[in-house]
Amino acid sequence: MKRLNIAIIGLGNIGSHLFKYLNDNKKILADKNNCQPIVKYVSAKNKNRKRKIKIKKSQWLNNYLDATKLKDVDLIVELIGGSDGAAKKLVFNALKNKKHVVTANKALIAKYGDQLSRIAEKNKVNLEFEASVCGGVPIIRSLKEGLIANKISKIYGIFNGTSNYILSSMDNENKSFQEVLTKAKMLGYAESNPSADLNGDDVSSKLKILSSLCFNSFLNKDIYVEGIKDIDKTDIDNANKLGYKIKLLGFAELLNNKIYQRVHPTLIKKNSYVASIDGVLNAVIVEGKPVGQSIIQGEGAGPAATTSALVSDISSILRGNIKFPFSISSKKRKKIRFEKIDNRPFSAYLRFEVIDKPGVLSNITNIFSKNRVSIKRLVQNPDKNKKSSSIIIVTHNSKDKYLKKIIREISRKGFIKSKPKLIRIDNI
Amino acid sequence: MKRLNIAIIGLGNIGSHLFKYLNDNKKILADKNNCQPIVKYVSAKNKNRKRKIKIKKSQWLNNYLDATKLKDVDLIVELIGGSDGAAKKLVFNALKNKKHVVTANKALIAKYGDQLSRIAEKNKVNLEFEASVCGGVPIIRSLKEGLIANKISKIYGIFNGTSNYILSSMDNENKSFQEVLTKAKMLGYAESNPSADLNGDDVSSKLKILSSLCFNSFLNKDIYVEGIKDIDKTDIDNANKLGYKIKLLGFAELLNNKIYQRVHPTLIKKNSYVASIDGVLNAVIVEGKPVGQSIIQGEGAGPAATTSALVSDISSILRGNIKFPFSISSKKRKKIRFEKIDNRPFSAYLRFEVIDKPGVLSNITNIFSKNRVSIKRLVQNPDKNKKSSSIIIVTHNSKDKYLKKIIREISRKGFIKSKPKLIRIDNI
Repeated sequence: MKRLNIAIIGLGNIGSHLFKYLNDNKKILADKNNCQPIVKYVSAKNKNRKRKIKIKKSQWLNNYLDATKLKDVDLIVELIGGSDGAAKKLVFNALKNKKHVVTANKALIAKYGDQLSRIAEKNKVNLEFEASVCGGVPIIRSLKEGLIANKISKIYGIFNGTSNYILSSMDNENKSFQEVLTKAKMLGYAESNPSADLNGDDVSSKLKILSSLCFNSFLNKDIYVEGIKDIDKTDIDNANKLGYKIKLLGFAELLNNKIYQRVHPTLIKKNSYVASIDGVLNAVIVEGKPVGQSIIQGEGAGPAATTSALVSDISSILRGNIKFPFSISSKKRKKIRFEKIDNRPFSAYLRFEVIDKPGVLSNITNIFSKNRVSIKRLVQNPDKNKKSSSIIIVTHNSKDKYLKKIIREISRKGFIKSKPKLIRIDNI
Repeated sequence: MKRLNIAIIGLGNIGSHLFKYLNDNKKILADKNNCQPIVKYVSAKNKNRKRKIKIKKSQWLNNYLDATKLKDVDLIVELIGGSDGAAKKLVFNALKNKKHVVTANKALIAKYGDQLSRIAEKNKVNLEFEASVCGGVPIIRSLKEGLIANKISKIYGIFNGTSNYILSSMDNENKSFQEVLTKAKMLGYAESNPSADLNGDDVSSKLKILSSLCFNSFLNKDIYVEGIKDIDKTDIDNANKLGYKIKLLGFAELLNNKIYQRVHPTLIKKNSYVASIDGVLNAVIVEGKPVGQSIIQGEGAGPAATTSALVSDISSILRGNIKFPFSISSKKRKKIRFEKIDNRPFSAYLRFEVIDKPGVLSNITNIFSKNRVSIKRLVQNPDKNKKSSSIIIVTHNSKDKYLKKIIREISRKGFIKSKPKLIRIDNI
């Protein structure tokens, strides 16, 4: 039986889980793929850290970059993380030295994926990154293989479990953002520094990768990104009253031959499928021809789910199945002009906290009318004690730039008590 | 560029759709798979039938079996249908003559898949059947590749769009089985002879195939199958009152090292994910380690969705990716003893239409108690005009054989007005 020698670089929770899995499942993987995976080497920053796995002395590499040079390494699994530094060095060198690479590093692929795939193709090795997007959800393999026949017009969904956990807990447990975030950290659903999860960057990286796969395009560096940091309980309650849930969604869509990519909190109808996805789950919805709409849902993070994704990539390499990293050769990938969302129409929810005095409402509605944004629904909730009022407006479809302009203009007014809110509505 | 010559045998709606798709998408498929698909030949029963596709004279085979002999055929797409007869002859001969085979024929694979895969493996050709299970839902490729790392403990879901359309329309549109079936035929959601859809056979074939892939076992010939023919509006209404929906589900599950397979109408909680799947959609839920729960949902039938699946199989062959048809070599597939469901415990819904006279209720509850089936909930709805009564019982978990025994015993009683109902409940 053929063998494939693997080096695992990075031995945190995920690396350790994968190490154990590969040792325990050597036989079944060999049976299924006609080639046996051997964990030949490992390396990590801290050699002496306590780990629940048994590493042989001969397996340890003091210098992780040796994995890219050793003749008895065929495949390197990069689990260091981060778009630059050690991870970048490792993956570039590995591919240059004709080693296959499997990585869970969305930041690296979203930033350097185009360059890396060119090197991989030139050297006829695999660069696989199923684990970088939505953990155990086999979305990349589905786009590259199961749904290969389809011309994709739209991909969207819940790509970040931490944000989704926070939003759904604020809603279901009636708690504030801070309370829920503290609990999420305690449960291990949020990292000690959760900024990439909360500011939308994590979703943005995943969306860039998925988008390239869907539209056969190069990675788009410039997409609209807004996280959940500014969502508060009041907005969630208002959304509920209006028949909506708030979810952090990523969207890439083809409209009139232009591709729009965006990440932002979104009001979606309560009875929609996506609204029902609570907690740390991820869900990806793909619309394509001829297949219609497909949904793939599952565990988006954690060592177990990520191992499932890493092993699917490793198995693909065990079977000797060399594919273009982005589904199509770099020479054939398209330079698509991505559109900013400024001219894309949205219906939107806006909230203004104002001093309760005569003329404020007409002042606000005048600004809407001046910008030709028409109002579908307006609710004014006065708070007599504080002499203030909350004005909630749902608009008809209006270009994004006008919605943002309204926010800018009204922000400057003297009657505004706190930063106005704009949350886009999507009729999915 | 390499080329792969294809013969499409069977040119109904699906065959014609695939023919057109392959002609229109030659270039993108070649770009993605590094090999060009050429539709070299076609054949069908009726040469002169009106079709919306342009077939060249040189493409037509008068004898469909010639495809298995011609040197310039690499891959045969079988779209004849039926487990025996022409389809069987074609696929056996094709594999014996070292032609790759792609088929949408669930009946054939469920019946002869074990034999066929042995021939395919011996001759090192592909036998692919993504399109045979749940149309455009890429469940087979996901099990064989995206989720390859997982030890599956359970797979279940909605595998038949026709039945699901009928059940959800009876519920949502408040119509009888017959009314809805007539409408389903009109809309093309049910065939003129829909018996395989309604009696559960279609789901049974799909479940057999999925089950083999999940548990690395040979096909099980003997599974419990019950269709939706006996479900009436009263049961759907009762289910609603009790907080349930009725769905036709297929299940394959590993419990205490035994595999149970079953197809039957099932009461599931209204707020469960599966209960929300209405109309002709299909949904497959997979539980495995390490990934946890995954869900794949999409269009389960129709020429477009089926083409998506067929092309994913064809693409896999274009890439030269020869795999075991059932994920693992026939030599390694396991002879698992499948358990009948007799000893599996179920909570269940039972309905008895009885003559309204003293002693009937105690007679019924005595039979339950004698069979040690304990009652969780009992509702008696008298119909004074008809001097009859409807007795609805929800049981605690009880072995299936006792539930069936109760039905048999009570059926014989003189006070029974119509065939008693037993619908199992699943807490999914």
